[in-house]
Amino acid sequence: MSRIVMKFGGTSVANLERIRAVAERVKQEADAGNQVAVVVSAMAGTTDQLIKWVEEASPLHDAREYDAVVSSGEQVTAGLLALVLQNMGISARSWLGWQVPFKTNNVHGSARIENIDTTQMIDRLEDNIVCIMAGFQGISDDNRITTLGRGGSDTSAVALAAALNADRCDIYTDVEGVYTTDPRIVSAARKLDKVTYEEMLEMASLGAKVLQTRSVSMAMNHGVRVQVLSSFTDKPGTLVVDEDEIVEKQVVSGIAYAKDEAKITLVGVQNTPGIAGEIFGPLAEGNVNVDMIIQNISEDGKKTDLTFTVPEGDVDKAEAILKDTGHVKYAKLMSDTEVVKISVIGVGMRSHAGVAARMFETLAAKGINIQVISTSEIKISVLIRAEYYELAVRALHTVFGLDSDQE
Amino acid sequence: MSRIVMKFGGTSVANLERIRAVAERVKQEADAGNQVAVVVSAMAGTTDQLIKWVEEASPLHDAREYDAVVSSGEQVTAGLLALVLQNMGISARSWLGWQVPFKTNNVHGSARIENIDTTQMIDRLEDNIVCIMAGFQGISDDNRITTLGRGGSDTSAVALAAALNADRCDIYTDVEGVYTTDPRIVSAARKLDKVTYEEMLEMASLGAKVLQTRSVSMAMNHGVRVQVLSSFTDKPGTLVVDEDEIVEKQVVSGIAYAKDEAKITLVGVQNTPGIAGEIFGPLAEGNVNVDMIIQNISEDGKKTDLTFTVPEGDVDKAEAILKDTGHVKYAKLMSDTEVVKISVIGVGMRSHAGVAARMFETLAAKGINIQVISTSEIKISVLIRAEYYELAVRALHTVFGLDSDQE
Repeated sequence: MSRIVMKFGGTSVANLERIRAVAERVKQEADAGNQVAVVVSAMAGTTDQLIKWVEEASPLHDAREYDAVVSSGEQVTAGLLALVLQNMGISARSWLGWQVPFKTNNVHGSARIENIDTTQMIDRLEDNIVCIMAGFQGISDDNRITTLGRGGSDTSAVALAAALNADRCDIYTDVEGVYTTDPRIVSAARKLDKVTYEEMLEMASLGAKVLQTRSVSMAMNHGVRVQVLSSFTDKPGTLVVDEDEIVEKQVVSGIAYAKDEAKITLVGVQNTPGIAGEIFGPLAEGNVNVDMIIQNISEDGKKTDLTFTVPEGDVDKAEAILKDTGHVKYAKLMSDTEVVKISVIGVGMRSHAGVAARMFETLAAKGINIQVISTSEIKISVLIRAEYYELAVRALHTVFGLDSDQE
Repeated sequence: MSRIVMKFGGTSVANLERIRAVAERVKQEADAGNQVAVVVSAMAGTTDQLIKWVEEASPLHDAREYDAVVSSGEQVTAGLLALVLQNMGISARSWLGWQVPFKTNNVHGSARIENIDTTQMIDRLEDNIVCIMAGFQGISDDNRITTLGRGGSDTSAVALAAALNADRCDIYTDVEGVYTTDPRIVSAARKLDKVTYEEMLEMASLGAKVLQTRSVSMAMNHGVRVQVLSSFTDKPGTLVVDEDEIVEKQVVSGIAYAKDEAKITLVGVQNTPGIAGEIFGPLAEGNVNVDMIIQNISEDGKKTDLTFTVPEGDVDKAEAILKDTGHVKYAKLMSDTEVVKISVIGVGMRSHAGVAARMFETLAAKGINIQVISTSEIKISVLIRAEYYELAVRALHTVFGLDSDQE
């Protein structure tokens, strides 16, 4: 007997027919003698509709009211799934965030989980009652509904799995698992059987939309065994596990891309000590997330050009902040949103040299110019012109031996 | 300065445009220096959709899950109205039933209100914050969401007005007030300026759909001054008040009809002492609400025919119960759903004789046969064949001087 958490995303519970299919999967796990907790998202499209209404109601909205409105979608699916299960003869009940309670801080719209009281739920699990929790939501200290940000139901599921000390957390979605890259771009993309937390974290934060980044870091910190799999097929998915569990490590396990990047260049910045802090400090205070940074020193060492990337949606804010920082002197500010960040990811890089060189050679052979580079222990990212991104992803996928026909 | 409760029904908050119009009305009351609490229903159509999903999910549904699902509609409108008001510069916040808390018993699906903790809300009202409450919902002792039954937001509003000791409870709806009868049937129907609690109670329970019956009896018991008015015009509505406040009492103030009645006749029942209890006891236990009853004794006094009415939706259940009650012997059971109950209502009847006679004469003159009669101090109801109901309502409306051109 295992204790498992199953999480179903919006497309998996898009209508009653799909909710019935979800219930069948839950029933299989329950019939197999497992204790089952389920986390559900809102029906596909519901949250978007609710957010649209909120934005129409008030462009600068009170995040507490936003949370009260948008959390209602998960409430509906949690209740409906409980009803469908009961109708199939399976004992089940639903919980909303405030009922568990699933306590968070009071940063409405992107709250962080602080504490989950699982007393009631464990009692029910031990009585073989399927416990269904509305994902994406919690309750703050002042008794108001909070939400965890888009994709937050993944984090709800992983957090619940950690709190319940579950044996496994299965994230059901509309793809069959984690792929070596986006199959819409590379038809030879392969599903990975296993991927490490670190790789998954890089993939999630570098643009792969399979799991919410926070859910991955939470799974890593709590050692929750996560499986990503499709609710539309019966195939095994991808296990997200500790590095120790992967025997044959690939040097490179995936190629990710992120299109929502923008590049800002400050030309002719006075090169004085502390100048970087004077530029990036105010950006950090303004909640602009700076990612890649490159600095070129001019020949005489007195002037420098600074290039860095920010999320595409923050370009205007970043420009406003930099123009406001009166004492940072520069000749010209240029911004460019026609860029894509391409990343090569793999825990095997730690022990294999030459990945970066091979990546750069491959792109050069295709005539693709690299604008900015950033690296970590297990990934190398480059910024290139947007028009080349499919070409780059395909070339790298082949070069690093990821194409399915090369297996 | 007054403290008022405003309640808006589903058609009044059907979309964002209408919610904005509602906000304008709320703003007027707030700008006039009033303390304003608002109770909202779900957007028109939402609750029906949610109920449909619940019924599809599980025909015999767990009422606790039903309540969790269907209460979500009011959550959305409460949050959206708060946002629209804030965007207009009016301080506002929303409360869900469990946040107030609005405590009820645990009869899910038709819970009764037990206690409303208004401490927080009164603090906010005194700070001139508009307090918006999601209607129709409460919380039970075991921390689960309850709902108050269809039309329950009226009851939420009246109960909140009583708990807040409000000066007035304005129920905004899609009609301009309480009419002498249904204007769709009688074009000469008049809007009443005032109506007594007792009359309104009879009208509500006899088929007029303006207010939920429970909300009227609650208003009567707590002396809440209720006004029914349209959210689509600026005309004054109908005040529901104590009898003392009405100076010139009409003998008859309204004609109501109810089409969802059914007649059951037991032919040839053995006429023994206690037989009525043996028939109606099991029906009451089965939650079948018996309304009108008539008994004819046969010439020799040994057999009797019993006729009574039940809600149309309960006919099958009633028949099953009566067939089950083995020791009640009867020759034949007949049921008929092609009947309508017509009622003449007026507090003036108490001091005026002859209303019943005039009603019966009027129907006889139109060739309409009366099947069953029941009376109370302030109303007379008759059951007639369904096909005659419009004719009957129009004739009675004219005879009792209610047509608008007769004023």
